[in-house]
Amino acid sequence: MQLNEIYAPIRKDMVAVEDKLKSIGIVDSPWLNDLLTYTLRGGGKRLRPALAILSASFYDYNLERLMPMAISVELMHMATLVHDDTIDNSFVRWGRPTINKVWGMEKAILLGDYLFAKAGSLTASTENIRVIKLLPQTLMTITNGELAQATSAFKLEQSREHYFFRISCKTAALFVFATESGAVLSKAPEPAIQILHDYGYYLGIAFQIIDDILDFIGTEEEVGKPVGSDLAQGTVTLPALMLIERYPQDNPVKRLFQGGDKKENIKQTIEIVRNSNIIQECFNVAAEYRAKACQNLKELPEKDTRTSLINLSDFIVTRKR
Amino acid sequence: MQLNEIYAPIRKDMVAVEDKLKSIGIVDSPWLNDLLTYTLRGGGKRLRPALAILSASFYDYNLERLMPMAISVELMHMATLVHDDTIDNSFVRWGRPTINKVWGMEKAILLGDYLFAKAGSLTASTENIRVIKLLPQTLMTITNGELAQATSAFKLEQSREHYFFRISCKTAALFVFATESGAVLSKAPEPAIQILHDYGYYLGIAFQIIDDILDFIGTEEEVGKPVGSDLAQGTVTLPALMLIERYPQDNPVKRLFQGGDKKENIKQTIEIVRNSNIIQECFNVAAEYRAKACQNLKELPEKDTRTSLINLSDFIVTRKR
Repeated sequence: MQLNEIYAPIRKDMVAVEDKLKSIGIVDSPWLNDLLTYTLRGGGKRLRPALAILSASFYDYNLERLMPMAISVELMHMATLVHDDTIDNSFVRWGRPTINKVWGMEKAILLGDYLFAKAGSLTASTENIRVIKLLPQTLMTITNGELAQATSAFKLEQSREHYFFRISCKTAALFVFATESGAVLSKAPEPAIQILHDYGYYLGIAFQIIDDILDFIGTEEEVGKPVGSDLAQGTVTLPALMLIERYPQDNPVKRLFQGGDKKENIKQTIEIVRNSNIIQECFNVAAEYRAKACQNLKELPEKDTRTSLINLSDFIVTRKR
Repeated sequence: MQLNEIYAPIRKDMVAVEDKLKSIGIVDSPWLNDLLTYTLRGGGKRLRPALAILSASFYDYNLERLMPMAISVELMHMATLVHDDTIDNSFVRWGRPTINKVWGMEKAILLGDYLFAKAGSLTASTENIRVIKLLPQTLMTITNGELAQATSAFKLEQSREHYFFRISCKTAALFVFATESGAVLSKAPEPAIQILHDYGYYLGIAFQIIDDILDFIGTEEEVGKPVGSDLAQGTVTLPALMLIERYPQDNPVKRLFQGGDKKENIKQTIEIVRNSNIIQECFNVAAEYRAKACQNLKELPEKDTRTSLINLSDFIVTRKR
């Protein structure tokens, strides 16, 4: 199923999200305008605003209260990407040059800071203390995960536990920020908030596993950035972890991290992973998390947006980009 | 007058600030602990927490409510310094290596993000919507000022207006964040909030002018970083601006920005500025802002902390570091 079909019940509001995002780029500051406009036009699937809106659809749905939050979660996402690309010295994202590539590291750091602040400002405008507290908590979790990743880069001694810790911090936390804040702002009862929290959490894990799979099996055209990027950064993701588990004595990841030829060892890692059942196993793990995400959705009121949440989880584990 | 004399009426609470700052460094994350501990031990004058506490002392003084805010303003300050040093590729601050020098650009970006988030979390814990809204607004202002500075680096066509815009964004905004939030949390009446807002604003401008003077007349030992750092970064501050105004046709700043010898032209600029009355004129401008800062303090309740605010403004324009 295509995203626009999944978004059908909230189509009008997703158009409003897009308009609002565009308007964020129009500021009375010449040096900010270009950076913001470029970033906000980047496209992307707007998954996080959709998650906030869908999660808010089961109880007291109030778009005016919700819109700043839907925008905030997307800006948080963008801010972390802008800083990540700077940290990783990545030059391509969404099939086009990154901010740090076009404007340099200095402006990329500042743009990220501005986006965090703008997200904070929008969240504060809801005047809801619970979601207000959730934002900095989320950012601390993300940063902690990124630091864990940076610290463990090019190290072989990594466990699945460490991998799941990292992705729960760097990806699932932001999904939870979207779903939980949507639920809270719709005045959902606590059990429903918990169900949507868990949905966001497990879906975020599944999403990141798929992202990590795509870094092995996608094409640069599909994923919008070079294949094997994670390995090039020294980041051990689930497919690489499974490879290391299978061939602990000698494998191209080990050779890569021990200073062996970069291009050749990345190529070999990708080949071995692709020609094994590792990818299928990774898909199985993602499917488990997807199932966990959806397991309690049936407790929510029966609405077409509930079906959208299920279809969205399907989209996330079957997507090609 | 020494800082410890000025802080005398709030000495106990400033000790509590120091303790609380230390405790922020103790987190359940090995990769964060070292970075935080190093940053929080950096010293500094703790001016901003003192401003928050002094500003809160005139009405309903409640340390429990205030402490998270006092810590938050200091963390915001530290976060911007950590990112600034990364942006400027500065290696020395407070007489010791910067985070980016010791741990690299990647971790410096993430540490700054974490500190912003922690500041947001502490501010949110006050559950006061007004100060909660002030934080992201302040960060947007600071970022805007930093972007203006980055964009105008190594450009000669700069006005005093542009200079004052930049320093009001990058320095005065954070002083206002401290004084206004202190006033708001003490339930001060609106006119008193405005007086303390203005005090923070004008004092921030005066503070930055002195900082910019010290970059010309200080010693590396005193200021804790190399003299002439601003010029080396292409940043035109008030002394350089006055030099350009006096010798518009030919001057070492112009030669520097047009690609002339860096070391030689910075040395010449510093010499000319030191051997003219430019420094005295800059001090005069700072004194004007200091006077503006204090002009309405007499409207506040007569307390020893009011005297502290006046003495602090004196300290700020006479300090050597």
